[in-house]
Amino acid sequence: MRAAYYEGDKKIRIGDCGTATPAAGQVQIQVSHCGICGTDLHIFHGNMDHRVKMPQVIGHEMSGTVTKAGPGVEGWKEGDRITVRPLDYCGECPACRAGHSHICQKLKFIGIDSPGAMQGIWNVPVHTLHRLPANLSFEQGAMIEPIAVACHDVRLGELQRGEYVVVQGGGPIGALIALVARNGGANVLVSEINPHRLRMLESLGIRGVNPKETDVAELVNRETGTAGADVVFEVTGAPGAAAAMTALPRVRGRIVMVAIHAKPVPVDLFRFFWREIKMVGARVYEPEDFEKAIALAAGGALPFDKLISATLPLEGLADGFRQLEGGGDVMKILIQCS
Amino acid sequence: MRAAYYEGDKKIRIGDCGTATPAAGQVQIQVSHCGICGTDLHIFHGNMDHRVKMPQVIGHEMSGTVTKAGPGVEGWKEGDRITVRPLDYCGECPACRAGHSHICQKLKFIGIDSPGAMQGIWNVPVHTLHRLPANLSFEQGAMIEPIAVACHDVRLGELQRGEYVVVQGGGPIGALIALVARNGGANVLVSEINPHRLRMLESLGIRGVNPKETDVAELVNRETGTAGADVVFEVTGAPGAAAAMTALPRVRGRIVMVAIHAKPVPVDLFRFFWREIKMVGARVYEPEDFEKAIALAAGGALPFDKLISATLPLEGLADGFRQLEGGGDVMKILIQCS
Repeated sequence: MRAAYYEGDKKIRIGDCGTATPAAGQVQIQVSHCGICGTDLHIFHGNMDHRVKMPQVIGHEMSGTVTKAGPGVEGWKEGDRITVRPLDYCGECPACRAGHSHICQKLKFIGIDSPGAMQGIWNVPVHTLHRLPANLSFEQGAMIEPIAVACHDVRLGELQRGEYVVVQGGGPIGALIALVARNGGANVLVSEINPHRLRMLESLGIRGVNPKETDVAELVNRETGTAGADVVFEVTGAPGAAAAMTALPRVRGRIVMVAIHAKPVPVDLFRFFWREIKMVGARVYEPEDFEKAIALAAGGALPFDKLISATLPLEGLADGFRQLEGGGDVMKILIQCS
Repeated sequence: MRAAYYEGDKKIRIGDCGTATPAAGQVQIQVSHCGICGTDLHIFHGNMDHRVKMPQVIGHEMSGTVTKAGPGVEGWKEGDRITVRPLDYCGECPACRAGHSHICQKLKFIGIDSPGAMQGIWNVPVHTLHRLPANLSFEQGAMIEPIAVACHDVRLGELQRGEYVVVQGGGPIGALIALVARNGGANVLVSEINPHRLRMLESLGIRGVNPKETDVAELVNRETGTAGADVVFEVTGAPGAAAAMTALPRVRGRIVMVAIHAKPVPVDLFRFFWREIKMVGARVYEPEDFEKAIALAAGGALPFDKLISATLPLEGLADGFRQLEGGGDVMKILIQCS
C-alpha cells in the first residue's frame, strides 16, 4: 500500500504506507477514496505549514473498509464499509464538557493535525466511524464529509420548509449548502462572481446570480415583497460579501457564517440592531450531521454525477491540486487510495 | 396644562398644551412624569432634525392617568394609572404580518415621529397602554420603558440562571441590563471606561471594570476556567467595543447587539466561525417585555432610589439636558409634566 506525503513547497511524494497495528480504541481502515478539500489545497500551498508535521499524509474526505479492530473496540468488524468524521477531541475542556466536542478547545483535526486518509491503510479512533449503506458507492461515500458540513450549516441556520435562502459563494460548499437547503424545501438563490461556478450551479439546477451584474439586495427585496431573505449563508470569506450580507435578511432573519474571514472586516452592526438579525457561526459538524448527510446521499437526493468532476490515482494528487488552482469547471476531485 | 417644545438648535420652549379630543381607538392621558432618554438628548443636539417635526413635543418614558377614552375604546376608564409602549405600527408590512410589529418596516416611534409625552395632556393609541400596579409610584412608572428595553435585551440573549454575563457599557441601559440579568440569576460584570459610571455601578452593587486598566478577556477567561462568557451585551456603540466583544463569548456563547453603531466597523468574523458564536440584534421591546418590567419593578427588584438622579419641573428640561451632557454622576432625570 502507498501514501501521498506532503513535503512542503508544493511537493507531494508517493511512498510506502505504514501498516501499524491499531492501538486500543482504534480501527484500521483500508481507504478506498479521498476527496481533495479546499483545506488540502491550502496545505499544498504552504499556508498551513505551521500546523502540519512534514512529511505528512493529508486528506479527510474519505470512504473505506474496516480491516482490523484494535483492543477494546466493539461493534465494528473487518469488511464494514465506513466514512470517518475526522475530529479528535479532548473530552475535558469546557466546550467538550458542555457537549460541543466538535469545537473542543484543543481539537485535533485528523488529516491536518495528525495523519490523514490519502494512504492505503489508516488507523483512526473508533468514535469517528459512520457506517455507509450498501447502496452508496465508495466514490459517493467520500463525499459524505463535505455534505455533512452543509447539513451542519443548514441545521444551525434553523431552516424551515418554504423559506427564502441566499447562499453567498457557489464553490463546493456553497453548492452543497444550496442542494441541502433545496432538499429541505427552501427557495434558493446563490450569489457567485465566477462564471465557471455559475455554469456549474446551472448544471445542478440551482439559480445563480452574479452580484457584479445584479443588485442582489434589490432582487431579494422584490422577490420577497420587501420582506428580505429568511436565511443568508456567507461562504465566500470576501470582505465585500461581509459588507453585502447584512442588507439581505428579513426582520429576525438569520446569517450563517460558514466562511473563514482571516482578518476583521467592516460589518454593518446597525443592521443587526435595526432588523433584529441573528448571526451564527457554523464550524465542521456533529455526529447527527454525518447521519443526515448519509441519509440524504443514500436517498438519492444529491446529483453525485455532477458533483464529482474526476477520480485520479494517488499519483495524480499534485495534478488534482493544479486543476483546482485553475478555478475552472471543477467541483470535487477524488483520489483513489487503494 | 403646558408642554415642552423642541424648536431646533438646542432650544426648548415651554408653551400651552393642546387638549384635543381623543380620536377613535385613542385614549387621552394626563402625563405625570417623563424620563429623559439618550434619544431625547440626541434630538436636543439636532442629530435627529431630519426626523422630528419642529416645534415638537418629545419624550417617551412616561407614566400618567387616563382622562378620556375615545370612540371604540374598551377596557380603560378615567383614573386608570398607565405607562405607554410608544410604538405605532402599520399592521400590514411583512414584519407586522410575521408577528414582529415592534420592528414594523414603517414603525412610528411615538415621541420622535409623532408628538411625545413631555406635556400635560397627551393622546395615544389604546394598544400602547400598560397598567401600572398601585404599589408603583408615577416616578417609578416612568422608568418602565427603559427597564422594558433591558428586559427585551436579556430575553433575546436567552439568559439562563447561573450564566456569566459581560455588559459592555455601564450607562443607563447597560446598568439596567446588568440589574435585570442579575435578577435573572446571572453573574454580571460591566466593562465601562467612565469613572463616574463605574462609581454609579458600584453604588448599585454591580461589579464594574475599566477595560483601559483591565484585560477583560483575560479576566473572563480566568473566572470561567477558560470557557468564556455565556452572554455579552454590547451597549457602547464604540468601534473598540465591537472589536473587543468577539474575544469574550464561550463556544456557542451569545452576543446581544443593543448599541447603535452608526457606521460599519471591523468585526472579527473568524471568531464567530471558530466558536460558533451567535449574535442577535435587539431593538426596543414587545408587550411581554413591558409586563416583565412592570412585574420586576412592582416586586421591588430594582433600586429606584439610586436609578432616579433627579426630578425636575417641565421648565427644567433644558437644564436636565445640560446635566446629562456633563456626563457626571447622573443616571436618570425625570421631568414632572403635570
